[in-house]
Amino acid sequence: MGLKAYPAIRDVPDELDHVILAIPAPLTPKLMHECVAAGVKSVTIFTAGFSETGDAEGTRLEQEILEIARQGSVRVIGPNCLGVHCPVAGISLDDTVPRVSGPVGFLSQSGGNARDLVVASADRRVFFSKGVSLGNALDLNESDFLEYLTDDNGTDIIAAYIEGLKQPQRFYRALRAACARKPVIILKGGKTLSGAGAVASHTGALAGSRAIWDTLCLQTGAIQVDHFHDWIDVLMTFVHMKPPNGRRVGIIGMGGGASVLAADECEEAGLAVPAFPETVRQELLKFTPRVGVGLRNPVDSATSVYFDPNSLARTVKAVADWDGVDILFVVLPAIIGTKIGPQILTAHIKGLAESARDFAKPVAIILRTAAQSESERVAREVRGECLEAGFPAYDSIDSAARAVNALISYHLPQKRG
Amino acid sequence: MGLKAYPAIRDVPDELDHVILAIPAPLTPKLMHECVAAGVKSVTIFTAGFSETGDAEGTRLEQEILEIARQGSVRVIGPNCLGVHCPVAGISLDDTVPRVSGPVGFLSQSGGNARDLVVASADRRVFFSKGVSLGNALDLNESDFLEYLTDDNGTDIIAAYIEGLKQPQRFYRALRAACARKPVIILKGGKTLSGAGAVASHTGALAGSRAIWDTLCLQTGAIQVDHFHDWIDVLMTFVHMKPPNGRRVGIIGMGGGASVLAADECEEAGLAVPAFPETVRQELLKFTPRVGVGLRNPVDSATSVYFDPNSLARTVKAVADWDGVDILFVVLPAIIGTKIGPQILTAHIKGLAESARDFAKPVAIILRTAAQSESERVAREVRGECLEAGFPAYDSIDSAARAVNALISYHLPQKRG
Repeated sequence: MGLKAYPAIRDVPDELDHVILAIPAPLTPKLMHECVAAGVKSVTIFTAGFSETGDAEGTRLEQEILEIARQGSVRVIGPNCLGVHCPVAGISLDDTVPRVSGPVGFLSQSGGNARDLVVASADRRVFFSKGVSLGNALDLNESDFLEYLTDDNGTDIIAAYIEGLKQPQRFYRALRAACARKPVIILKGGKTLSGAGAVASHTGALAGSRAIWDTLCLQTGAIQVDHFHDWIDVLMTFVHMKPPNGRRVGIIGMGGGASVLAADECEEAGLAVPAFPETVRQELLKFTPRVGVGLRNPVDSATSVYFDPNSLARTVKAVADWDGVDILFVVLPAIIGTKIGPQILTAHIKGLAESARDFAKPVAIILRTAAQSESERVAREVRGECLEAGFPAYDSIDSAARAVNALISYHLPQKRG
Repeated sequence: MGLKAYPAIRDVPDELDHVILAIPAPLTPKLMHECVAAGVKSVTIFTAGFSETGDAEGTRLEQEILEIARQGSVRVIGPNCLGVHCPVAGISLDDTVPRVSGPVGFLSQSGGNARDLVVASADRRVFFSKGVSLGNALDLNESDFLEYLTDDNGTDIIAAYIEGLKQPQRFYRALRAACARKPVIILKGGKTLSGAGAVASHTGALAGSRAIWDTLCLQTGAIQVDHFHDWIDVLMTFVHMKPPNGRRVGIIGMGGGASVLAADECEEAGLAVPAFPETVRQELLKFTPRVGVGLRNPVDSATSVYFDPNSLARTVKAVADWDGVDILFVVLPAIIGTKIGPQILTAHIKGLAESARDFAKPVAIILRTAAQSESERVAREVRGECLEAGFPAYDSIDSAARAVNALISYHLPQKRG
């Protein structure tokens, strides 16, 4: 690939800042000694085959590496990890993830989850300041990286995938300090007995008790998510949405049954769906048919409104102008894009962007697909347009409601629980 | 459109079996009188603008129609509905849904949800015997249709979207009788106060108490789902999967962190993820690298295994041959399709189909996308291939686990709770 290779560390003429060790585990101690001799300050050990295997020899090797590192004053990331992601320095987890900088820092005990985080986030215009896949956390552990990201001025939001804690009390203090300064959004692996078993063979960590973990998050104010896709949606929300002033959502959609389920899902996620007063209803009736619609909240609007971007933008404006809602959920049924072509959705997004300039409340777009393949294809095509227009875009009302509720809960702590 | 039109019912020369009323609400009573005079046995009133508007005049009109129907012995479906879906008779909800027959019957208080149900199900090779969108249920109500579908020999599975009950005690008896004969999979709208408010302006129904509803399902054995997409996944599972003999799942995937989350999600859904014995581990080690993998359950397999359909099929076979698992979850990371091309996924599906002939346990495929747009596109492309090979295909482990757990719970009622 046009890069110069050397037979050994000592043959490299320059001073070495950092070495990535990617040779078989049994040879790693020897290479560690060479790093010490060369005055290397820190290393990433990509290599696996240590304590996570459960074999005595792997554990012994790992301890040998730790001793070499301690005696030689070399700090270690890993082993069994992808190491550092730092686009501004030209370093990424691997050569397939985007090297674009943004406001989110991450730490992850899984290299795969870290990689998936970076790629899925990029699809939602969410990028990273610095991050680390820390693997077995032999030397530098989750507390070190959490403290670093807390102090890092380039990091506004912290995302963490945690399997187990090396120093639980230190982590508790670090997490409390972090949450006091910036949102920390945590996906915890190994919350069940089966998951904890998988953790043992993955990074060799002790997953700990679910009750203790949940309490840790409650006491520190960390934001816990249940699934990978929620992690991504919550990050998108924190990056792309101005915090609403409260929990009251105005929902604009199409279809009576879909509206009923939307209201259920918002309330279940912790949001309120207040009924509109007569003034809003009268404003909507100026351009909405009287029959076959619902104007109570959700607005179950007529198909004709959805065929006309001006009417939809006007509907959203009428709801936003009522001081009884703090945030708007606008459902764009992707099916209209499959019938008329995606340009109708593009026109709606443009119309909404213009309309949203006239009010100060945040808008979330739900590209509703109703689990239909053709709609899913169209929804994917226009998600980027939503984000570029300033609207986070979700696949379903329930994922939007959970993510927005997390944002509101963070900014309205007195209303939590 | 080449169809003959008549100015009035009395001008139609043939005997009329069924009339669909799609004229404005105030004119509907007159047309109902004409139907009675012509000896029509049943009608569908598509028209909206009745009691669901909350207006006194709409409610009065609806009662007038009911009186005409009762006195003239005409049965009424609706108003405010899409009516009957019966592909074998050439009738469908509208002209955009597939007219293909299958084993599922449905009743829905929402026309939109009924339509979405038929379209999303078709994407998963699930089709319908008969179904009905019943709207305000002025005359024929949810109990009538549930009793009908229970007795219908062409219907093996019943799907229901319910907002409120006209005759709660009758429905309880009908549901108990139905569940004794076939699975009934229910999506309930209006489980929250906000949802109940939306129900009132949608079909005018009383949504009732959530606690009573949950108890009703528990006592009758009805299968309740929480979201639209779960409804679709559970139906796919009942149609396409042979019931497993128990709850113990063997998971084959790629990625340590993803495996940890997969184990968590299975256990949280009610499944068991037993650790493999040494025999399975030794069998896997015959062709799986020793390092960077997990062979405990989930199998966190090497990338090399995923690049070779024979190795993946052999992995699945090795797990299936252990009598400690009842069902296999095979995770196909769609990302490998984005790197190599979808043909690698096609080859895997073919290999799995051949391998699955050698064991009697059901296999679910999870087309794991990790919320990445490019992976989602590839996953959609191969979902049909999975179904044609006999494997239900899911978007995520948690949706697969919930759906499969519903199937197992139905067939192992003694292990419920």
